[in-house]
Amino acid sequence: MAYVQLTEELVLDYVKNLEPMKKIFSSFDNIGIKEVGDGNLNYVYIVTNDSNPVETIILKQAVPFLRVVGESWPLDIERMEFEVMALRQQYEFCPNLVPEIYYADNEMSLVIMQNLNKHTIIRGEMNLGKKFPKMPDHVSTFLAEMLFRSSDWGMAGKTEKWPHHDTASKKEMVEKYINKDLCNLTENFIFSYPLYKSDTNTYTPGLTEEDLADIQEDNELKVKIALIRYKFMNNAEALLHGDLHTGSIMANEEETYIIDPEFAFYGPAGFDIGLLLGNLFLAYIAQSYRQIQLGNKPYDYRKWVLDAIAEIWEGFTVKYDKLWQEKEEKDKYPMWDYPGGKDAFKMLREAENLRIFKDAIGIAGSVMIRRTLGLAKVSDIADIEDTVARSALDRLALKIGKQFVLKADSLNSIQEVIAIAKEISPLQ
Amino acid sequence: MAYVQLTEELVLDYVKNLEPMKKIFSSFDNIGIKEVGDGNLNYVYIVTNDSNPVETIILKQAVPFLRVVGESWPLDIERMEFEVMALRQQYEFCPNLVPEIYYADNEMSLVIMQNLNKHTIIRGEMNLGKKFPKMPDHVSTFLAEMLFRSSDWGMAGKTEKWPHHDTASKKEMVEKYINKDLCNLTENFIFSYPLYKSDTNTYTPGLTEEDLADIQEDNELKVKIALIRYKFMNNAEALLHGDLHTGSIMANEEETYIIDPEFAFYGPAGFDIGLLLGNLFLAYIAQSYRQIQLGNKPYDYRKWVLDAIAEIWEGFTVKYDKLWQEKEEKDKYPMWDYPGGKDAFKMLREAENLRIFKDAIGIAGSVMIRRTLGLAKVSDIADIEDTVARSALDRLALKIGKQFVLKADSLNSIQEVIAIAKEISPLQ
Repeated sequence: MAYVQLTEELVLDYVKNLEPMKKIFSSFDNIGIKEVGDGNLNYVYIVTNDSNPVETIILKQAVPFLRVVGESWPLDIERMEFEVMALRQQYEFCPNLVPEIYYADNEMSLVIMQNLNKHTIIRGEMNLGKKFPKMPDHVSTFLAEMLFRSSDWGMAGKTEKWPHHDTASKKEMVEKYINKDLCNLTENFIFSYPLYKSDTNTYTPGLTEEDLADIQEDNELKVKIALIRYKFMNNAEALLHGDLHTGSIMANEEETYIIDPEFAFYGPAGFDIGLLLGNLFLAYIAQSYRQIQLGNKPYDYRKWVLDAIAEIWEGFTVKYDKLWQEKEEKDKYPMWDYPGGKDAFKMLREAENLRIFKDAIGIAGSVMIRRTLGLAKVSDIADIEDTVARSALDRLALKIGKQFVLKADSLNSIQEVIAIAKEISPLQ
Repeated sequence: MAYVQLTEELVLDYVKNLEPMKKIFSSFDNIGIKEVGDGNLNYVYIVTNDSNPVETIILKQAVPFLRVVGESWPLDIERMEFEVMALRQQYEFCPNLVPEIYYADNEMSLVIMQNLNKHTIIRGEMNLGKKFPKMPDHVSTFLAEMLFRSSDWGMAGKTEKWPHHDTASKKEMVEKYINKDLCNLTENFIFSYPLYKSDTNTYTPGLTEEDLADIQEDNELKVKIALIRYKFMNNAEALLHGDLHTGSIMANEEETYIIDPEFAFYGPAGFDIGLLLGNLFLAYIAQSYRQIQLGNKPYDYRKWVLDAIAEIWEGFTVKYDKLWQEKEEKDKYPMWDYPGGKDAFKMLREAENLRIFKDAIGIAGSVMIRRTLGLAKVSDIADIEDTVARSALDRLALKIGKQFVLKADSLNSIQEVIAIAKEISPLQ
């Protein structure tokens, strides 16, 4: 049906007229509807049969403006098509790590999907000191499966015409996922505005002109971020989630789901990893204050965050490499069929892993800077009411983020990255 | 009209029924038609009013197979659409450096265009020792204009929503130029088959198993070319010609035209430059023998080839930089609006130039290897009948090409590249 912006009142009528919903809801007589969207972009409704609460769905609708700014910032509602395409692709590659789609309506710019009501967004829970023991393993699986399987390394096929290397189907994927509007958001809000005095930026009181200049007037940093942004705009390597932070992960003790892929596009393989690690390092910084407020010594929880960072990277490395070796065992590419060819294939995998790593760390640093100086903050730090404490944490985020960007090209292991964070914000 | 493969007999009927041709030809009573295609892909007809030979056109038609192999190798005739799109775009950016299109018919997979009958393909003329004094300047203009204006650096626009950085129109270009079939050709015939014992390869008698193994079993070389190929497949930086060698350039003493862009796609900015430089280095190698056959000391002509190489790279560098500075003067991007911002902007331009350079040299080396071991040879060397002399030249091409690939990442100037070539094949 033609686009109408739904409200809590309109959702029931919409849902009860859909054929697929009649399989999920045994009755529409006692339906509860609640808007719960806390994102920057969309409205999210939980629809539940209050007489039998296991009958429940999520309805997510895009509105034609940037929700966090308001109607003055129009945004293409086609973005929901990207979310639906990406969710379906992710479900194919990682069926247990993304919600199931029950129904999608491109004209209405909405999707109806599995209600993850036994899971919570991990950012808020992490702010309260909750650990998610299986999350790093699950997330590294998601990253390895998505980034390998959607890349040329994973997709180069055997066809009659090109018996060893046909890349047409990957190029069709790139074409499908050209996501102009949401890439513009990332390019501007992550990689541009925070680097100069844009009136979209907001700064914690307490951050000084010197703090700003240390970022916004550092030539080497600005050139490096300009080149990171250029890679973001040009290197169509893998199907990215595009916005994979701790607010896009829902989990409990046993399960983990990745949600909200409307920013999906083909970009640098290091992007999702870097964005997530940047957010986890912000949690590491925030917890030096939050744990004390919770009455704990910060060491234990902050150690868990650093371990999660290492586990995500190392898990990704091992799993990506395994997928690649499995593909090679199946393909038996003549490129590596000679004495010593196995070593060359290993050298290639290692070179590629290191390249993804360096890209990821540059992105992690850029993200830490943008979450501190740009429009969209992370609650980890931004929700701390004590402005003196908050600006001290902000300053740590800027310093660590800056070092990540400056040093990314010369770093070789996740432990070196963690060491930089610990040097600036000691683990205690 | 629906696709029919034309022949010399059918061309006249086709041409004389086209309205635009009635403006070019005053009469169709005495039309001469000659097929002159010497490429790997298409048929090319010269159509001339023999009663008034200034009335003349070129008709180029794609056939649904790879001409150099035969009907057994089907190839999508949609490639002509890419050629026509690219020619029109190039004509917009560089009107004096590409032929004018008079008519195009996508269904017939053909284009009718300016007959460059005062110009010759430079490869054949260079084989005979002819110099083209203005070619390096013209070609570097073509490269700078195309590679800058089609890139995000050149295209990032000012729109109401994104006042400093809107990249949507560049992404639309990327989408338009996804050229699956011809990219597969390049990825396989340039970057894959020559690196292993593919039955598409042909080798000059005289090349030994050791010569082949020195390429096909060198782990470092193979990994580097795998990564160069990966950039080719992923880095959608600029609208490339895609096959810019000395057989795609027509020139005389005064003018230069770039033809045959059916391989056009968005790829690494260094690709066209590298492919052309690789071909010029092959000419440099071939001329050590050819000049003697022509009765000359080789020094003078070979020196001209090396000077042309340096002039193309240095001309590109200066002109690309000038275009970027002009854009910045117009845009006044706030990113660089602070004390020291000019220096940062300069650092960025220099970093980007160096990155393009390193990519180009790796590609130049890959191309020299493929032209020696792969299916499609260059006449510079392949037309030399003395097989002993020819295999000696082949060996030089392999050695120089290999060093370019291995050293690309550590080279910083075109003079260092030229020095490698001179060390292996001395300028004398």
